[in-house]
Amino acid sequence: MKQGLLIVVSGPSGTGKGTVCGELLACTPELAYSISATTREPREGEKDGENYYFITREQFEQEIAAGGFLEYANVYGNYYGTPLKKIEERLAAGQDILLEIDTQGALEVMKKCPEGIFIFLLPPSMQELERRIRGRGTESEESLQRRLSAARDEVELGRQYDYAVVNLSVKQAVKRIQGIILAEHSRTGRNEEAFEI
Amino acid sequence: MKQGLLIVVSGPSGTGKGTVCGELLACTPELAYSISATTREPREGEKDGENYYFITREQFEQEIAAGGFLEYANVYGNYYGTPLKKIEERLAAGQDILLEIDTQGALEVMKKCPEGIFIFLLPPSMQELERRIRGRGTESEESLQRRLSAARDEVELGRQYDYAVVNLSVKQAVKRIQGIILAEHSRTGRNEEAFEI
Repeated sequence: MKQGLLIVVSGPSGTGKGTVCGELLACTPELAYSISATTREPREGEKDGENYYFITREQFEQEIAAGGFLEYANVYGNYYGTPLKKIEERLAAGQDILLEIDTQGALEVMKKCPEGIFIFLLPPSMQELERRIRGRGTESEESLQRRLSAARDEVELGRQYDYAVVNLSVKQAVKRIQGIILAEHSRTGRNEEAFEI
Repeated sequence: MKQGLLIVVSGPSGTGKGTVCGELLACTPELAYSISATTREPREGEKDGENYYFITREQFEQEIAAGGFLEYANVYGNYYGTPLKKIEERLAAGQDILLEIDTQGALEVMKKCPEGIFIFLLPPSMQELERRIRGRGTESEESLQRRLSAARDEVELGRQYDYAVVNLSVKQAVKRIQGIILAEHSRTGRNEEAFEI
């Protein structure tokens, strides 16, 4: 069985990684989403094992102690994490897994899973990033400035990734990421069996 | 100006690299064909600087002495070669160049241009390769066996390439190579300017 690829898509907040990853999943049937575990309450319509694995704080902290997360974070008092074992099982079964994650989380994953494919999504410019965040209309001026400043720092982290994709348009970004997945599957080292003819 | 990529497609004869490269060029407008120099006579309809650079044996041998070829070969008394300077000029101008070449030639190019992208095209099986060569109906049994035996040796060389693409269908192989080109352009090291925002 050929091992699946762990595709990690990250980037500063406001770069559009949610939209790009949604579209990527919608038009790449062979790619599956990594489901996170969380201690927060399910929102209406959310299903356990589909949107998230909903677990208790106790269970979560036991898993942390057991090294069971590829990465995890505590966001406003709730834990969110990527269950290592579930991902390993699916990769071993040949499934490609998409992990959409913030830049801090991605650096953690890089340490634990260096064989992952790390893709950094960039805004075309800081002006465009500002325009996008303002367009949402949900931020105060202060929080917007804080986010922009954080984004500038995060962009620097992008240099550690394997690939950099500028999100000029969702369609173009999706096409590039699909290309990266195809290319990585075509690497000689991943195709030993193709030479056994 | 962003440097273009040298895309080298190679593989055992009979693998279909001519067909794949023809289709790849037809549906990838940003990719240009590397034009070879040759000492053989132009065939009807062939144009200098389009199909080949037609040069004299003297000119060719002067160029060899001057290190002017990325690779060259003497085939049945005629020289064929890839002019280094022309390729370098076009790459520097940001043009992606496709080089379709036999496995020996590709190994030469690997030494002189390690920054090239080396793609090995494989037949799905030796049976399929045999079927394809027989299908052409142009070979004696002896020459066919010789070609199959050579192909087996050539397949081993493929392990030195960056990518291995099995030619299951022309369409699929073209899509994979297009993916590889997109991916290589997305490598972080080739996108310094995307971080200068």
